[in-house]
Amino acid sequence: MAPTKKAGVLGATGSVGQRFILLLSDHPDFELSVLGASKRSAGKPYADAVEWKQTTLLPESASGIVVQECLPENFKDCDVVFSGLDADYAGDIEKQFVEAGLVIISNAKNYRRQVDAPLVVPTANPEHLDTYKTVKAQANGAKKGFQICISNCSTAGLVVPLRALKDAFGPLEAVTVTTMQALSGAGFSPGVPSMDIIDNLIPYIGGEEDKLEWEPRKILGTIAADGVTFQNIPEEDMRISAQCNRVAVTDGHTGCVSIKFKNSKPTPEQVKEALRNYTSAAQELRTHSAPSKIIHVLEQNDRPQPRLDRDRDSGYAVSVGRVREDPVFDIKFVFLSHNTILGAAGSGILIAELLLAKNLI
Amino acid sequence: MAPTKKAGVLGATGSVGQRFILLLSDHPDFELSVLGASKRSAGKPYADAVEWKQTTLLPESASGIVVQECLPENFKDCDVVFSGLDADYAGDIEKQFVEAGLVIISNAKNYRRQVDAPLVVPTANPEHLDTYKTVKAQANGAKKGFQICISNCSTAGLVVPLRALKDAFGPLEAVTVTTMQALSGAGFSPGVPSMDIIDNLIPYIGGEEDKLEWEPRKILGTIAADGVTFQNIPEEDMRISAQCNRVAVTDGHTGCVSIKFKNSKPTPEQVKEALRNYTSAAQELRTHSAPSKIIHVLEQNDRPQPRLDRDRDSGYAVSVGRVREDPVFDIKFVFLSHNTILGAAGSGILIAELLLAKNLI
Amino acid sequence: MAPTKKAGVLGATGSVGQRFILLLSDHPDFELSVLGASKRSAGKPYADAVEWKQTTLLPESASGIVVQECLPENFKDCDVVFSGLDADYAGDIEKQFVEAGLVIISNAKNYRRQVDAPLVVPTANPEHLDTYKTVKAQANGAKKGFQICISNCSTAGLVVPLRALKDAFGPLEAVTVTTMQALSGAGFSPGVPSMDIIDNLIPYIGGEEDKLEWEPRKILGTIAADGVTFQNIPEEDMRISAQCNRVAVTDGHTGCVSIKFKNSKPTPEQVKEALRNYTSAAQELRTHSAPSKIIHVLEQNDRPQPRLDRDRDSGYAVSVGRVREDPVFDIKFVFLSHNTILGAAGSGILIAELLLAKNLI
Amino acid sequence: MAPTKKAGVLGATGSVGQRFILLLSDHPDFELSVLGASKRSAGKPYADAVEWKQTTLLPESASGIVVQECLPENFKDCDVVFSGLDADYAGDIEKQFVEAGLVIISNAKNYRRQVDAPLVVPTANPEHLDTYKTVKAQANGAKKGFQICISNCSTAGLVVPLRALKDAFGPLEAVTVTTMQALSGAGFSPGVPSMDIIDNLIPYIGGEEDKLEWEPRKILGTIAADGVTFQNIPEEDMRISAQCNRVAVTDGHTGCVSIKFKNSKPTPEQVKEALRNYTSAAQELRTHSAPSKIIHVLEQNDRPQPRLDRDRDSGYAVSVGRVREDPVFDIKFVFLSHNTILGAAGSGILIAELLLAKNLI
Repeated sequence: MAPTKKAGVLGATGSVGQRFILLLSDHPDFELSVLGASKRSAGKPYADAVEWKQTTLLPESASGIVVQECLPENFKDCDVVFSGLDADYAGDIEKQFVEAGLVIISNAKNYRRQVDAPLVVPTANPEHLDTYKTVKAQANGAKKGFQICISNCSTAGLVVPLRALKDAFGPLEAVTVTTMQALSGAGFSPGVPSMDIIDNLIPYIGGEEDKLEWEPRKILGTIAADGVTFQNIPEEDMRISAQCNRVAVTDGHTGCVSIKFKNSKPTPEQVKEALRNYTSAAQELRTHSAPSKIIHVLEQNDRPQPRLDRDRDSGYAVSVGRVREDPVFDIKFVFLSHNTILGAAGSGILIAELLLAKNLI
Repeated sequence: MAPTKKAGVLGATGSVGQRFILLLSDHPDFELSVLGASKRSAGKPYADAVEWKQTTLLPESASGIVVQECLPENFKDCDVVFSGLDADYAGDIEKQFVEAGLVIISNAKNYRRQVDAPLVVPTANPEHLDTYKTVKAQANGAKKGFQICISNCSTAGLVVPLRALKDAFGPLEAVTVTTMQALSGAGFSPGVPSMDIIDNLIPYIGGEEDKLEWEPRKILGTIAADGVTFQNIPEEDMRISAQCNRVAVTDGHTGCVSIKFKNSKPTPEQVKEALRNYTSAAQELRTHSAPSKIIHVLEQNDRPQPRLDRDRDSGYAVSVGRVREDPVFDIKFVFLSHNTILGAAGSGILIAELLLAKNLI
Repeated sequence: MAPTKKAGVLGATGSVGQRFILLLSDHPDFELSVLGASKRSAGKPYADAVEWKQTTLLPESASGIVVQECLPENFKDCDVVFSGLDADYAGDIEKQFVEAGLVIISNAKNYRRQVDAPLVVPTANPEHLDTYKTVKAQANGAKKGFQICISNCSTAGLVVPLRALKDAFGPLEAVTVTTMQALSGAGFSPGVPSMDIIDNLIPYIGGEEDKLEWEPRKILGTIAADGVTFQNIPEEDMRISAQCNRVAVTDGHTGCVSIKFKNSKPTPEQVKEALRNYTSAAQELRTHSAPSKIIHVLEQNDRPQPRLDRDRDSGYAVSVGRVREDPVFDIKFVFLSHNTILGAAGSGILIAELLLAKNLI
Repeated sequence: MAPTKKAGVLGATGSVGQRFILLLSDHPDFELSVLGASKRSAGKPYADAVEWKQTTLLPESASGIVVQECLPENFKDCDVVFSGLDADYAGDIEKQFVEAGLVIISNAKNYRRQVDAPLVVPTANPEHLDTYKTVKAQANGAKKGFQICISNCSTAGLVVPLRALKDAFGPLEAVTVTTMQALSGAGFSPGVPSMDIIDNLIPYIGGEEDKLEWEPRKILGTIAADGVTFQNIPEEDMRISAQCNRVAVTDGHTGCVSIKFKNSKPTPEQVKEALRNYTSAAQELRTHSAPSKIIHVLEQNDRPQPRLDRDRDSGYAVSVGRVREDPVFDIKFVFLSHNTILGAAGSGILIAELLLAKNLI
C-alpha cells in the first residue's frame, strides 16, 4: 500500500534531520517529499549536500531529492513537516510555516513553553494532540497551521514511566533524577570533542537540567478548559531536581530516578506491574511505529544498559530496571531510552502517525 | 632523612597492593620491608611475581624484594601492615595478624562493620583513630594488635564534603547520591570486561549501594563512652539513598549529590565557603601526604571531570563543583575523588602517617 | 516455506554460539534443532543457561530449547552442526562428531591445518567445499562425517580482496598487513579487560599473526589431484607479514594492507574495478545470506570505519577503501570486515548454505 | 639557580602552546617571559584568555602574564621563541619574527621543507642545529634570526629508532609503517568529534602520510657542503610507505614498522642491542630534558602500550617492543612515543636546550 501523506523535513542535513529521513524512507504512511536545508545546500541532490553519518546507508529514495530552501512555499503540498532545525533558525522559520497553514512537528526547543503548542512524548501524553481538533473546529474549515513540539531527549525517557506511575498511584510529590547522556544528543560536527570524553565524563550539559525540571510539568499537565492551551503542574505540586552528565556512550540516555508519591507508597512489585501494564493511545490506535511494549521492565540486576537495550522495539520503548525501595523517598529505578528515536526524530514520526490515526492530518 | 618505620604489604601483587607499593616506594616515613602474596608468588622476586599494571614504572626499591607468604611471623618486624587482600582472604589472614599484635590497615570490606574497628577516611574522621590510644592504654604496655579499615572507594569522596557540611551546618537529614565510578575500582584482571563498557555503562555495582548507604553512618558517627567502640548515626537520623554506576573512566569516581539539612538551609555561597575552609587533622599534624586543600571547590560549570581533576593534590583531595540550590532538597553538587588514592591505597598511607603523628605506632 | 534442514550448535552459550543462534533463529533453510553446551548447562532451558550478551533479544525460538551435552548421539538427526566451542574442547568433541558421521562447521582453530579439512571463507574460496563431494563419492553412499573450518576472524577480511586481486592480476608476491581488531574477537567474559583498552591499545594478540600469515596460503591454494586434500601456496611464492593490534572497537576488524604483485602493476583504478566486479559462488548459487556485493569499494577518504560500515550487507560484505599506490610495493588499501559475522558465525552459516546449494547436505 | 634565558610562546592559548607553557613553567634554563596569542586574547591575563585543558593545573607563574599580540617587537627580548601557531597563521608571523632577528622553534608544518631550516627531532638529528653556527659566522656578529622546525608528531617516534638502526646497520632500503595515532594530535576544540571515535577508528589523517613519508628523508639526511642547507635522502634510496589511523587514545602515537636494510640483515637481538645502546648529543650535552634512555626496548609481548608507556622519561623517550623477524622485509617492531612531548612541544624545549648547550643562543 503506497503512502498517502506527503512529508517534508527541515534541517535535513543535520543529525536529527538525517534520522527523520531514515525513519521516513520506507514508511507506510508518509512519503518523503521535500527536503529543506540552508541556502548553501539548496539546489544539490541530497546525497551531495549531506555528510551522512548514520550506521545504515543513505536510503536511495532520499539520495536523489534536490534540497530546497526552508521557505513555506516549497513545502506547501506537505501534510506534515518535521523540523530538525537548530534553535538558532527554528524560531523564525517554524513561525512562518505555521502562519502559512502548515503542521510543524519540531525537535527544537523554541516553542516548547508556548501555551498553545502541545509538547508531546507520544507514548506519554498523546491526548495533548487533541487541542488541534479544537483549533481546526474553531477555524471553520479554513486551513490552519499548528506547532507541535517534541520534548527534550532526556525528558522522554523520564516522563513515560512517570506517566505510568502517576496513572497508577496518583500525584508525584518529588522526583530526583541523575542522567548519563549519550554523545549523539550533542550532534556530530563537532558535537562533544573526543578529548573531553575519552577516559572522562562531563558533569554538565548546558540548559539540560532546566528542561528536565520543567518539561514534565507540561507533559504530565492537562488541557485547559478552552481546549486549546495547556495547564502545567505547578512546581510546588511536583518538585523535580535533575543533574545531567555526558558520558562516553554513542546512543541511549540512562537516568537514575527516585520518586516520592503524594498519597501512596507502592511496593517495588506494584511499581513493576504498573509499568508493565501501562499502555497508550499510540498502541491502541495501532500506529505503525508504536512499540510492542511502551515500557520494558527488566529483572536482571545490571540492566538496562545502553549498548544492549537501546534498540528494544526499534528505539521506541523505554526500558526500566532496578526497581527497588528508596531509603529517602518511596521508589528508585533506572531508565534507558534511545535519545535519537524516542528522544527526538522517532517521537516526531510517532506524533505524525497519531495525528493521522486521529484524522487530524 | 631515612624512613623510621617498617611497612609490610599484604596482597602485594594485586591492584591495590601495587598502589601501596608505589606510594611507599619513596616515602619519607615508611620503608617497604615485607611483601606478602599467595603461595604461588612466594619465593619470587617481586618483579617476577607481579604483572605490573601502573602508569609509572615498578620502583626499583620493590622489584628485588622476595615475596613472602601472608603469615604473621614474616611480618613480625613491621610497624604497620597495609592489606590489599581480596575479601575472600582478608577475613582469616587479617584476624591472625591482629591477634599476633600487628597493626593492620586494610582496604578489604570484611571488618568495616566490626564495632571496635575504626573505619577511617583520613581527611574526614581522623579522630576515630584515637580509640587505639585507649586500646593501648588498657593493654598496660603489652603489644596490642589493631584493625583499621579503609572505607569503600566511593564512600571517601562523599563523606569528606558531608563532614565539612555537617561541621558547618549541623545534622544532615537526607542525602541522595548517584555515582559514576571508574573501572580501576573493579581491579585489573579481569575487572570489568571491555565489551561491557565500550559505548556502554553498567547501572549496577554489586554491594556498592549498601556500602555507600551504610559507611557514612559510622564515619560521621562518634566514639562511644568506652573509648573503644563506635556509635553510628541511626538510619532515621540521616537517610541516604545511593545509585551506583560503572562508566568508561579509568580512575576517578564522580558523584551527583543532593542534601537536606535538619536545621538549616545554607546558600550555595555559604556551602562553597564551608567546603573551602574545611581543614583536618591530616593537615594540622603536617602529615606527608595530606593535600594542600582537603576540598577543591571548582567554579567552572563543567567541572570536576575525572581526567582533568582526579590528580589534584596527588589524588588526596576531593574536588567539588556545581554547588547550587536543589529544588527538592536544599543543596546539590558534584564531587570527584581518586578511587585508588583517597578511595583506597592512599587513604591507607595517610592513616599510617596519622598513626605516626599521633605516636600510635 | 519451512526450513528443511536441522541444525545443531555446539558451545551454544558462548559468544560465537550466541551468534550462530541469532543467525539461525529465523533462517529459511535451517531449523535450530539441538543446542549443546557444558555439563553444567545441560538440562536447562537455553534462556536459563545462557548469559545473553547480544544487542538483539534472545530469539523466542531458542529460549525454550533444553540444552544438551555435546555428545554425537544428541545431534544424530542434525544435517549440519555448527561449533562455537573453545579450542580447549573442540579438538576431541569435533573429532567424535565427524567419526559419528556428522558434518561439522567449526569456528575453532584446531583442524584448520588438517590437510583434508577445507578452510573456507565462503566469499573467497567456496570451491574448496567440493572435496566433500569426492569424500562422499568414495564412501559409496555410506554416511560420511566431514570437518569444515571457518577461518580466523582477521583472515576473512584480508583474503576476500586478496582473492579478487589474484583472480584479476595474478599471483601476489608479498603482502604486509597491520590489523586493528575489535574486542568481540576476544569473547565476552572476561575477554579483554577494560583497564587494558580504555585510552589504550594492545599491540599484540596471541597467535593471531601466525594465523594471518598462514591461513591465506591454504584459502588461496588449490585442491590437490586426489580431490580430497589441499595444496597450499608455498611461503616463498607469497610472503605475508602481519602485525595485529587490539583497539577500543566492539565489532569490526580493520586492516591496512600493502601488496606487491608478481607479474603486474595495476593502477588504483584498475584495482578498484577488480574489487567492485568480484563475484562469488555464494552469490551465483543465490544463497540466503550472500551479500549483495562481496566487496564494497568506498571512495570517501576516511572510510571504511568500523561503527559506520561493519553492518553493510548484514556483516557479510568486506569494505575496502583508500585504494592508492604504494611507494614501496604496488598498491595499498584499508579493509574492514565484521569479525563475528563474516569473520566467524556468519561464515559458518554461509558455508552451510553453500553445502545445501551444492546438494552436499 | 635562576633561569638565564628568556622564552616567548606564540599561540599560547592553543593546545601546543599550553604544553610549551607547562614544560617551561619550572624550567631551570628558560624563563617564561612573553605569551602571544590572537588579538581577541591580547591584553588579558593568561588565566582569563586560555581554556586550560591539561591534566595538571595552570602554573601560577603563567597565569598572571598578560597576553600580547604576536608581533616581533613584543618578543624582542626573547632569546628563543616557541611557536604553537596553527599553520594558517604560522607562515606570515614566523617569517616576520625571523626577519626581526629572532630564533623561532616552531611546531607548524609551514617551513619544514625550506632548504635552510633544520627539521629536528632532538634525539634523532641534533647535529642539524649546527647550521645555525655557520649562519651566525657568516653574519659577522650581526644579530641573525633563525627558523627551526619541530617534526610532525608521528615522525618523531619513527625516526629515532630509524636513526639508531641506520647508524648501526647502514642504509634503509624500505620502510613500511602503519600508525595508530592519539586524539590530542588533532587538538582540543573541537579536534576529533567524539561520535567519530567512540567504538570506532578513522583510517585517515589529512596530510599525515605525506609527512611521514617525506620528513625522515630530511631528518636522516645530511648538511650540505655550504654548511647551511640540507641534503635529503632521495626517494629511491629509502622508500617509505605510511598508513595513518586515528584511534581512541588521548596521548601517545603507536606505529607498526617493517624495515628492509640495504646491506645487512641483523637479527632481532642485534637490533634490540643497537636500539638499547643508541645515545645522542641530547644526553651527552647533559641537557635538562634529555631522557635517561633515548629508546626503551621492552621485552614483554604486549608492550609498548600508550596508557602504560607514553610517560617513560617524562615523554621524551621512544619505546620499542616486539622486535622480531619480518617474513617480507628484515625486521619488524612496534614503537610508541608521546605525541605532545617528543612529538611536539617537548621536542621544541629539548631543541632549545641543545641550542643553549651548543652556545647558539
